[in-house]
Amino acid sequence: MDQYQPPLADISFALEHVVGYPDIAKLPGFEHADLDTVVELLEQCGDFMAAAVAPTNRTGDTQGSRLQPDGTVLTPDGFKEVYHQYVEAGWGSVPLPEEYGGGGFPRTVGLVIQELITSANMAFSLCPLLTQGAIEALLHYGDDALKERYLPKMVTGEWTGTMNLTEPQAGSDVGALTTRAVRQGDGSYAITGQKIFITYGDHDMAEQIVHLVLARTPGAPEGTRGISCFIVPKFLVNDDGSLGARNAVETVSLEHKMGIHASPTCVLSYENATGYLIGEENNGMRIMFVMMNSARLGVGVQGLAVAERAYQQSLAYAQERRQGLAAGASGASSPIIDFPDVRRMLMTQRAHVAAMRYLMLLDASYVDISTHHPDPAVRSRADEIVGILTPICKSFGTDLGNELTSLALQIHGGMGFIEETGAAQHLRDIRIAAIYEGTNGIQAADLVGRKLGVRGGSSMLEFLGTMREIEPQLADAGTEFDPIRVELGRQFDALEEATRWMVRTGPGDPNAALSGSTPYLRMWGLCTGAWMLARAALAAPATGDAGLAESQLVLARFYAEQLLPQCASLLGAATAGSRDLFALDAGQLSGAARKVRS
Amino acid sequence: MDQYQPPLADISFALEHVVGYPDIAKLPGFEHADLDTVVELLEQCGDFMAAAVAPTNRTGDTQGSRLQPDGTVLTPDGFKEVYHQYVEAGWGSVPLPEEYGGGGFPRTVGLVIQELITSANMAFSLCPLLTQGAIEALLHYGDDALKERYLPKMVTGEWTGTMNLTEPQAGSDVGALTTRAVRQGDGSYAITGQKIFITYGDHDMAEQIVHLVLARTPGAPEGTRGISCFIVPKFLVNDDGSLGARNAVETVSLEHKMGIHASPTCVLSYENATGYLIGEENNGMRIMFVMMNSARLGVGVQGLAVAERAYQQSLAYAQERRQGLAAGASGASSPIIDFPDVRRMLMTQRAHVAAMRYLMLLDASYVDISTHHPDPAVRSRADEIVGILTPICKSFGTDLGNELTSLALQIHGGMGFIEETGAAQHLRDIRIAAIYEGTNGIQAADLVGRKLGVRGGSSMLEFLGTMREIEPQLADAGTEFDPIRVELGRQFDALEEATRWMVRTGPGDPNAALSGSTPYLRMWGLCTGAWMLARAALAAPATGDAGLAESQLVLARFYAEQLLPQCASLLGAATAGSRDLFALDAGQLSGAARKVRS
Repeated sequence: MDQYQPPLADISFALEHVVGYPDIAKLPGFEHADLDTVVELLEQCGDFMAAAVAPTNRTGDTQGSRLQPDGTVLTPDGFKEVYHQYVEAGWGSVPLPEEYGGGGFPRTVGLVIQELITSANMAFSLCPLLTQGAIEALLHYGDDALKERYLPKMVTGEWTGTMNLTEPQAGSDVGALTTRAVRQGDGSYAITGQKIFITYGDHDMAEQIVHLVLARTPGAPEGTRGISCFIVPKFLVNDDGSLGARNAVETVSLEHKMGIHASPTCVLSYENATGYLIGEENNGMRIMFVMMNSARLGVGVQGLAVAERAYQQSLAYAQERRQGLAAGASGASSPIIDFPDVRRMLMTQRAHVAAMRYLMLLDASYVDISTHHPDPAVRSRADEIVGILTPICKSFGTDLGNELTSLALQIHGGMGFIEETGAAQHLRDIRIAAIYEGTNGIQAADLVGRKLGVRGGSSMLEFLGTMREIEPQLADAGTEFDPIRVELGRQFDALEEATRWMVRTGPGDPNAALSGSTPYLRMWGLCTGAWMLARAALAAPATGDAGLAESQLVLARFYAEQLLPQCASLLGAATAGSRDLFALDAGQLSGAARKVRS
Repeated sequence: MDQYQPPLADISFALEHVVGYPDIAKLPGFEHADLDTVVELLEQCGDFMAAAVAPTNRTGDTQGSRLQPDGTVLTPDGFKEVYHQYVEAGWGSVPLPEEYGGGGFPRTVGLVIQELITSANMAFSLCPLLTQGAIEALLHYGDDALKERYLPKMVTGEWTGTMNLTEPQAGSDVGALTTRAVRQGDGSYAITGQKIFITYGDHDMAEQIVHLVLARTPGAPEGTRGISCFIVPKFLVNDDGSLGARNAVETVSLEHKMGIHASPTCVLSYENATGYLIGEENNGMRIMFVMMNSARLGVGVQGLAVAERAYQQSLAYAQERRQGLAAGASGASSPIIDFPDVRRMLMTQRAHVAAMRYLMLLDASYVDISTHHPDPAVRSRADEIVGILTPICKSFGTDLGNELTSLALQIHGGMGFIEETGAAQHLRDIRIAAIYEGTNGIQAADLVGRKLGVRGGSSMLEFLGTMREIEPQLADAGTEFDPIRVELGRQFDALEEATRWMVRTGPGDPNAALSGSTPYLRMWGLCTGAWMLARAALAAPATGDAGLAESQLVLARFYAEQLLPQCASLLGAATAGSRDLFALDAGQLSGAARKVRS
């Protein structure tokens, strides 16, 4: 039942016709990554993920990772073998620099690979995802010696990486961390402290684990300005590159989580562990932002990927399960896909998943433009757009991950609540994605704070203007596009009104802007989603595939008429200010605190 | 952290000032249940649920119920003892008829008791809930002999009850069931078949379990018209009322579920078990509807109750957890309740929970009017209103249960994903409530089918007219009520438009009405919720409690301005008809099925 089929038809259409991948492949450095090459590569990748990785998803959930009495972490049966196959095939290295053994493919391609591995097994996919984050930090800020020592084996995946930010008192408030780093005579640092929520902080899939650890040096400034970033390898590395003595980092315990059971979430204790400074002292937050910005889009992709897997399962179930007789049907019973409300749940998933995929691929393509376009002005604008789209992709994408996996479960009826069905696992697994890498509330604050502040609001208003260019295109495309154009215009108006309110209000009253930030971000998510589906509907006829053109038109219209209108309904919440949110004191917020009878 | 505080202040205000409980207490038969008596009773009940039942919630989840090698089911530690205390105190019997040993209190009071026990431990609460359903079926359709034999001990809770509808091929389609019942020489029936999803189908908390089982007699008509309902006791009952031989019903297995782990969900096998017909042959569906209609409001209450518990926990956490510094704050850090987005999540929970409680109490009070009012015309209209409100309470209440427990988890950040925190359990537990007792999709179909059809749509349009009477009341109440009045008016207009479309369209094109049924039901949920909060805001000043009056005004305004507008945004989806839902074939619904390159 729960057999994963890589949606390569959707993906290749998206690359070729919706997000303009052929133009990305023309950027300097990507000449070897033309569309045909990429699609063939992705087909092979999809085959691998479906055949090798996807079957480990359910067993990984039931078995989970376990802390052994000797302090090592054992991953579920099959994980180690599949990970070795993954390294062997080189899937992790495809988008990494050729200089360190990578394939040098665009981030856009890397994003698709990440979708495929995450749909196959989200808990498994976290190990490569964290490793890539650590690689990016090293690429940007490591000196040559560190890069040469660590990067080649991290690029292949033989060594894996972790991110060590969180401490019990320092979650969203990273600046509150207290782990100490004291410089030693040989230039290394002695790291001491406890870190929590360390994904794949220990495991048995690779011989070496490279921890990136945030810590404070003696006398460093308070808060985020006094944080430095260190490499702390599980095993010290000898000068010849071979592994040496075990470093002083221990796994204290594993968390018992709601989902992603196969992914070991470790409490790590550092006791004068040997660490190596990345970049300069007190530069840790900047390095961490490099890792996080990359990871944030990656976490958005998790929402997409798990929703895609859950959707596939619910679609298959809806075609097989028979209950009652649908209107106009004959025979003993109908498959439940013939009932309108089941259809609504399927269409809602299908339309949101398609829109999210287009949007995330667009974001990734702007990442590629921002790093590889020859024109600095184009690079700079692309970087601004990445800044706008990334919190939307992370937050809206993972909110939808929660909502859509719940719809997929609902289609299964009572069977959906039974763990053996597998539908519940998708909902449980994806629930963390709205929390980690900056909670969705923090993403919304980033959008109305830093991102809206770029050029006094002009960056976001200009992007809205870019989106609105689709309205005349829809008008020219034929009457069947009219309902899409009308609804998009109405909703863009609402988004523009909210944006102008934010630009006007935020500088003088940040709390008012923050009060509306979450509904405001969702307005963006809905509008960008509808916009991408409309772009796809406009582009589809060029494929000459009438069925495809029809399906894209229907998805765009369904989304515009039946999902998108929520956008304008959020205008009131986005622009209400902080008054009512803060009007009740703690006693009034409680229903038990007042005297019982008046 | 997760200490449950019964919201008696909210509840007593709701009873006295919002849903007019004093008038219910004046109905013939309820004279002993005046407000003072009831509030005192509920305070004691709340104390019991908080002190005795609530502490079993977390251990019940981790330990779960287990099937023993001898075929019996063991509930988690403490359940048996707490259940005996519950029976001893007589909480289950409060709303049941005095004739059989009950307290003869209104359903409205029973609903509050159900909220309290469900907040304390949803998995535990299911045993009494199912028992009450079985009692109601017996009360309405059992003959005197059956009633006298079974009811007294079921009313005390010494014996518990179950509902046996579902079979593997017969879920939502009850008519497809195949369990056989063959009449024996002594007037009893021999029952043979397998039933699934039987809540508390076996357990160790009571000496006897009374199964209500749907089955077919030989030659019965096909489908739902050929179903009969039987009592099948776990132990046969001797003429003197003592327990006799073990009946031929066995627990085959327990389901491994996403939540409510402590509630044993059994596969039961009947092998020529002795059963006794309730009412007449082929009348089983009518009996089952009695049980289900009562249970549907009860399941809605589960959404309310678990959301209330999760809300309390998230409110406490938001006051304790400190991260960063809020705008305008000084010191080292602020409690996260001072951040606007956390406030939004708290206010959203608070407003929805309050609105749901008012609405469900209103529904229950109409149940009481429908059964106890001296005027048949009033009873009849009250019964129509129960018919409208019950699917809304069930569906909207449990959808909100899912959404609000997820918000409560989100407030906990990374800790919310850790099972020990307890926030995840609430989300996992409540997920089933949108599915059982008729999926929420079936509730929506009931609303646009049977309920909208009552008097050609007049029943629902008249109720909408009743709701709109609040508009002039708000206009008279002072300018601070203006924003509420304006927004309610706008949204009632949208609901009215959708209703007239449904009335017009449904008879000729049922599939079109069904296609919009789920968004249409949510429009009702939002409007009735906002209406009840506005009623509470209008009533609160009469209490003389200025803090209460302010909090009710703020909740009503926040809901009207920031939550309610979603209603009108659903008008398009509610009235779009079936075209786009059915436009895509299975191939177009899949992203993998088409050829990869165009």
